[in-house]
Amino acid sequence: MHRFDWRAYFAQHLHADLLAAFIVSVLLIPQSLAYALLAGLPPEVGLYASLLPLLGYALLGSSPLLAVGPVAVLALMIAQGTAGLPPDVTPSQAALVLATESGLILALAAVLHLDALASLMSVPVLVGFETGATLSIALSQLPVLVGSPAKGAVLGSLVESALADGGAWQGASAAYGLAACALLVAARRWLKGTLARLAPLLVLLAAMVLSRVLHGQTAHLSLVGELPRLTPTLALPPLDMALWWQLLPVAALIALMTYVTSLVVGESLAHRRGDKVVARHELRGLAAANLLAGVSGGMPVAGSFGRSVLLEDAGSRTRVSGALVAGFMALAMALLAEALAWLPKSVLAATIMVAVLSGLKLQPYRRAWDYARSEALLMITVTLLVVFVGVTPALGLGVAGSIALLLKRTATPHVAHIGRVPGTEHYRNVERHQVECRPGVLGLRIDESLVFTNARGLADVVQGHLRSDIAQHGQIHRVVLLMSPVNAIDFSGLEALRELHALLASQRVRLDLSEVKGPVLDRLRAGDFQRWFKGELFLSHHQAMDGA
Amino acid sequence: MHRFDWRAYFAQHLHADLLAAFIVSVLLIPQSLAYALLAGLPPEVGLYASLLPLLGYALLGSSPLLAVGPVAVLALMIAQGTAGLPPDVTPSQAALVLATESGLILALAAVLHLDALASLMSVPVLVGFETGATLSIALSQLPVLVGSPAKGAVLGSLVESALADGGAWQGASAAYGLAACALLVAARRWLKGTLARLAPLLVLLAAMVLSRVLHGQTAHLSLVGELPRLTPTLALPPLDMALWWQLLPVAALIALMTYVTSLVVGESLAHRRGDKVVARHELRGLAAANLLAGVSGGMPVAGSFGRSVLLEDAGSRTRVSGALVAGFMALAMALLAEALAWLPKSVLAATIMVAVLSGLKLQPYRRAWDYARSEALLMITVTLLVVFVGVTPALGLGVAGSIALLLKRTATPHVAHIGRVPGTEHYRNVERHQVECRPGVLGLRIDESLVFTNARGLADVVQGHLRSDIAQHGQIHRVVLLMSPVNAIDFSGLEALRELHALLASQRVRLDLSEVKGPVLDRLRAGDFQRWFKGELFLSHHQAMDGA
Repeated sequence: MHRFDWRAYFAQHLHADLLAAFIVSVLLIPQSLAYALLAGLPPEVGLYASLLPLLGYALLGSSPLLAVGPVAVLALMIAQGTAGLPPDVTPSQAALVLATESGLILALAAVLHLDALASLMSVPVLVGFETGATLSIALSQLPVLVGSPAKGAVLGSLVESALADGGAWQGASAAYGLAACALLVAARRWLKGTLARLAPLLVLLAAMVLSRVLHGQTAHLSLVGELPRLTPTLALPPLDMALWWQLLPVAALIALMTYVTSLVVGESLAHRRGDKVVARHELRGLAAANLLAGVSGGMPVAGSFGRSVLLEDAGSRTRVSGALVAGFMALAMALLAEALAWLPKSVLAATIMVAVLSGLKLQPYRRAWDYARSEALLMITVTLLVVFVGVTPALGLGVAGSIALLLKRTATPHVAHIGRVPGTEHYRNVERHQVECRPGVLGLRIDESLVFTNARGLADVVQGHLRSDIAQHGQIHRVVLLMSPVNAIDFSGLEALRELHALLASQRVRLDLSEVKGPVLDRLRAGDFQRWFKGELFLSHHQAMDGA
Repeated sequence: MHRFDWRAYFAQHLHADLLAAFIVSVLLIPQSLAYALLAGLPPEVGLYASLLPLLGYALLGSSPLLAVGPVAVLALMIAQGTAGLPPDVTPSQAALVLATESGLILALAAVLHLDALASLMSVPVLVGFETGATLSIALSQLPVLVGSPAKGAVLGSLVESALADGGAWQGASAAYGLAACALLVAARRWLKGTLARLAPLLVLLAAMVLSRVLHGQTAHLSLVGELPRLTPTLALPPLDMALWWQLLPVAALIALMTYVTSLVVGESLAHRRGDKVVARHELRGLAAANLLAGVSGGMPVAGSFGRSVLLEDAGSRTRVSGALVAGFMALAMALLAEALAWLPKSVLAATIMVAVLSGLKLQPYRRAWDYARSEALLMITVTLLVVFVGVTPALGLGVAGSIALLLKRTATPHVAHIGRVPGTEHYRNVERHQVECRPGVLGLRIDESLVFTNARGLADVVQGHLRSDIAQHGQIHRVVLLMSPVNAIDFSGLEALRELHALLASQRVRLDLSEVKGPVLDRLRAGDFQRWFKGELFLSHHQAMDGA
């Protein structure tokens, strides 16, 4: 790493970073409180998670545009993951363990170069997960918005709880919540520039002042209530091995979601600037952020899409902006600690609902449906699982489903009998194009790598084409496989090729290969291919069909 | 199914089938007893498994060459799978449940068209599993061969048991066992034709006569002992739900191994005759065989490689030969029931050891090592897991490992910057060939389908090539992707292509595609591709580079 040039920084970038940091802080204050409540934690936990973790990412991360801190999806995962804990464990303790564990997992992934694990998360799973989480979060905030005590992280338990309460709600809470919703939506829609960005803070301040002046302490309006003295202290999370073990699966999923969603956000914003993100540095930065959250009274953190867009939009230049956000947050905590006690919880719920629902996109479902029905069904299944069952089974089944679809595709390759496009050196599917075939020679193209999922079927497929071609056009003495779509041959594929070669030889048919790719050929030559292969290798399919 | 023509059958095939059936029966008598003992079951269970199940396969299976019955690998799986059962369940009852369950699973797979599940078993896993099972079986028979009471289905428990006995052994058992081994090996090596095939039966008869004449009932020689009256009766297996549930995972693995090993055997023999095997009919036949085993006092059955080779070698023509084997077995049971009581167990152990060890092949390890190190390591890992830990974790980890290697390969595609081979219309990697590039246009070839594992990296890869090409040769205004290696584009790949298109457009670079495969293009046209794609599609890469 090159040395950071502070002098140049002050001259060129500080101004832009300061402005961007201020704008993000304005949104982060209510969100940090709200996401802590959503996770079932005391509100101050969200504030703590917005201090040191941001410094950690600024120090070790890679993106100048990633706004790290509490995010809604992780809050939902925390709420679900800490649901069945023993009564002597407080949710705050569990949150510290989750942050530390996922930090350690991210650090381990950085050390072991496991940054490629993000590739397990396909678009259908990611979209399905995010939509499902958005709906779950919005649903879980509905009771808070209207002052009902109903609670639940999945739909079933929420409805049950609401029914048990007989649908109780508070008029004052509902009035504050719905008014805040309306104002926030209106601000997003009609305001622009600085005013739009300040809107959440203004709504917050207005609500605090109003509730202080009009209501005082009353049972008819749920307030955030007095925060404990906000003095961040460093302390190890509880070292209870049984608890760590119990939370490990949730922590692993939190680590995966932290990494993947942050990477997706970071990459899409970096591409806008013609920049790129280094996946391993992201792992490092997110690990540092979560480990610091775990020792400073916080909760798991990740890159927030909404706040990152704000950061980019406001012109953040370097990762220093993240550190500046932490500074503003500290300042806000000092100035606002007392006032925040008067904030109605329903206003925080309004903040969450507007934030998550504004990110809701249904268009990918339609596009996936038109393009690939099976992937659209996977997307819908994951969405429904998140809402009705929970995050963990949804992710597990989603990843397994993506892999199954991929395996199925490689297992059933498209096979084409190919002939020459007259007057050219191009060879195309006889069923799609007007082409010429040479008598006695069968040209085949198998549109897939030769791997274990399809290897066992190779001989059958070739034999089938051979039989039908012999039935139509008489004897065949050569089969030429066009290998340009074969990107790899694994050991099972090699064995299948050897068996096919032997089988054809026993029928006095020679097997030739054309257009074998360089890397594939290198591999073949490293094995015993040249010892048993008696056919010829041609650089072009045309030479193969023209010659011999 | 067409009507079976019995008249033609008697005239043309009966003679060949009768001979083949007799030869296989000669080997099946000792093997059925031996594999039952290996599975920890009474010897008669093996005989029962060699009657009705063979009729079931003959009726519903598809291969005239598959010799169904008890096999060594399944015996090992049964021994391991029934190790931790409650004391009120006898191993025979568990074997009936396992046979019935795996029969039901195979039937379900036939109904649901799950015949493609066999493709999950890669060659490294299959070879590793078979070698590991062979070694485990041979090791487990060593104590029996020398008359020691030591027992254990994995290496650790076997050694422990042998040490606990202080290495006790019986001189007479060892003498019979080792002599039988020597005779069987010698017969395989030096005898040919009918005599070689009769050798196992002759050894068996000699051992029975000798032990009857020389020893009588003695404590110094473990004999098979009196078999209960062999009267096959039909009865439902025990309907204990808890037991069924407990045995289900083992039954599923037994069903998978039954299907895959039988399919591999059936296919390789069918190919020798220019024939093919219908996977669904195999499932059906094996399901019938196992269901019948479950209701007639048997154990799980599959196609045996050794006996199937004998069947083919001896010229079996139709599946009737399987039914004839059952007939010979019934005859043998009637004639030999009393005599079999005098058979020393160590002679049966010799039969098993010679049968399994003669199938041991180490050459695939060497070939895999030369061809693909990672797959060779997987093969070795599976082997060691079978010997030291057990069949279930070995298979589970093997299948997961094969899938992981496949995902890794698709996640890191080879990408080539391509140029024109002078004077031709062929385009090849600039780093491997002497080629010409056109200034201002970048030709790229991505050697993989565009799927979720590599989709996220697409933009980065193209940007990287673009940057380095611009640095070397100045401005680029077009990127042409040669799509002939792209066999499929999933939804994640489509999204990646769209993002790449937008990213390049923002840099005033046009994205063109050449040689898009027919099925891929059909898919793209079904989605919204044509609405956002502003580049051109070329039938050949040469046209793409030549034009515009």
